[in-house]
Amino acid sequence: MAPVTENKDRQHEPSQSGGEGHIHISNPHLEKIKEDILYHFDLGTYTHDFTALFGDVKFVCVGGSPWRMKAFAQYITGELKLGDPKDDIANICAGTDRYAMYKVGPVLAISHGMGIPSISIMLHELIKLLYHSKCTDVTVIRIGTSGGIGIDPGSVVITNQSVNSCFKPQFEQIILGKTVIRCTELESELAQELLQCSQEINEFNTVIGSTMCTLDFYEGQARLDGAICSYTEEEKMQYLNAAYEAGIRNIEMESSVFAAMCKISGLRAAVVCVTLLNRLDGDQISSSHEVLLEYQQRPQKLVGYFIKKRISQV
Amino acid sequence: MAPVTENKDRQHEPSQSGGEGHIHISNPHLEKIKEDILYHFDLGTYTHDFTALFGDVKFVCVGGSPWRMKAFAQYITGELKLGDPKDDIANICAGTDRYAMYKVGPVLAISHGMGIPSISIMLHELIKLLYHSKCTDVTVIRIGTSGGIGIDPGSVVITNQSVNSCFKPQFEQIILGKTVIRCTELESELAQELLQCSQEINEFNTVIGSTMCTLDFYEGQARLDGAICSYTEEEKMQYLNAAYEAGIRNIEMESSVFAAMCKISGLRAAVVCVTLLNRLDGDQISSSHEVLLEYQQRPQKLVGYFIKKRISQV
Repeated sequence: MAPVTENKDRQHEPSQSGGEGHIHISNPHLEKIKEDILYHFDLGTYTHDFTALFGDVKFVCVGGSPWRMKAFAQYITGELKLGDPKDDIANICAGTDRYAMYKVGPVLAISHGMGIPSISIMLHELIKLLYHSKCTDVTVIRIGTSGGIGIDPGSVVITNQSVNSCFKPQFEQIILGKTVIRCTELESELAQELLQCSQEINEFNTVIGSTMCTLDFYEGQARLDGAICSYTEEEKMQYLNAAYEAGIRNIEMESSVFAAMCKISGLRAAVVCVTLLNRLDGDQISSSHEVLLEYQQRPQKLVGYFIKKRISQV
Repeated sequence: MAPVTENKDRQHEPSQSGGEGHIHISNPHLEKIKEDILYHFDLGTYTHDFTALFGDVKFVCVGGSPWRMKAFAQYITGELKLGDPKDDIANICAGTDRYAMYKVGPVLAISHGMGIPSISIMLHELIKLLYHSKCTDVTVIRIGTSGGIGIDPGSVVITNQSVNSCFKPQFEQIILGKTVIRCTELESELAQELLQCSQEINEFNTVIGSTMCTLDFYEGQARLDGAICSYTEEEKMQYLNAAYEAGIRNIEMESSVFAAMCKISGLRAAVVCVTLLNRLDGDQISSSHEVLLEYQQRPQKLVGYFIKKRISQV
């Protein structure tokens, strides 16, 4: 059966929460649920006062690694002058090892693991958390790592659109066995604002470009160093060069469903990823721990500066 | 472009490692790599002596949660009489937070996170690890959690085949933008052996059935309680009932790529998942922590008994 393209209008319809800046819940069944258990966060509407806990959240920063999200929460504590960045910080999801969550003033930092399914579970529960908390005007930014295409390692890519392995800006969601196509464009105004921040920091190369989102790290990203590989080096290079020609500047594994779900839910969203290597030069991530650590701090620094500027501390 | 079905013969061809019981590496490029860095394990062939560290591994048990895999490693320590199960056990991948890995005699326990992409990265690096370590006659078992269909919560399902959301026993791997179809059948002899073990333990209900592997937890599994839902309760029930009619007894998010990759790599493989709820009765996982914890120990108990029996301690 041919895939169905979702009605774009639906994505801008007022939700049951309604009103400008509110979270849109595109699920009429949710009202009927008395207690909503966010299983993978180990949080529930009967056991936790969501409005009191999260009502003031304006920025949500998400990334794959729980360690990195904790480091970001500590970094932002110092940047917003809300405490000593060296102090330990409590994991709100301490009752589970699926995700880690930290809150610093108006900033929520959450890990999402690797890949579309893992971030998708987190986003469903995050969107419900923001809805139950009656949050308004929330900006969600993914700060991640990626493989670069044709740019120096350590460069930061701000995504204008997330494309699939055929270079199309769409995400295929399977619903009851049928494929539904969702739009994966990201807000250009927010991307420009982030680029401006990077220019003001002026410490590392930052570009706006397309990001390819794949379902795996090895065969799906044309690597030659997985346990299984059926193509030649020439075919690999042809594919990566075609990706570069199509405007793709990096490859990662979460941006498509992130862009699609944020769009449907009325959340302003951006993807800011550092590149750990240039895939036109190789496949293995062989830089030292120290170099990789410094690279991984770049999206944190950029987004930390953006948040400070938004709340007028720059 | 229509998807290509991979030549089944290729899956049984001798690999460059060759020989009965050896790990098949279906990648001619790997021989050319001098140092192989298993980035997501934080292990490398220059920095670690793989044969010394892992050469005696005969059983690999994998599951989503790092906490659960540590608990399993401790449990198996006691079962195989290799130490005190209450003692702490070192995480071999302590240099990264992507996966956790524990070794107890011939048993390796590794976490894989949630979803096909996350387990796929782990499997590529695991298969290379076993190959570099010159392991032979390895059995790999996924011990996980799932949603049941038409069976009581707490029942254990041993998978005979992993099916996709259209109930077909196949996994779609995207390679250089093209879809390749891989077989997801699991070895029936091993499944029967595990069922026999469960009957000998005689403590919980265990069945052999098909397992549906989906790309997400909410819309992809016909849940009504996600942040987005476009179908009615009737459509949901129709879909789940059709799944039951097709022989599906549980739904999870990793078995298809697990079955496909193990088959290609010459690894005997099984999937043993406990069901946390009966999806014909609802969507939310609302049992107490204690009940869920006891359920999650069932696949561990079954596979622990199986390993003991294999090495003739039962």
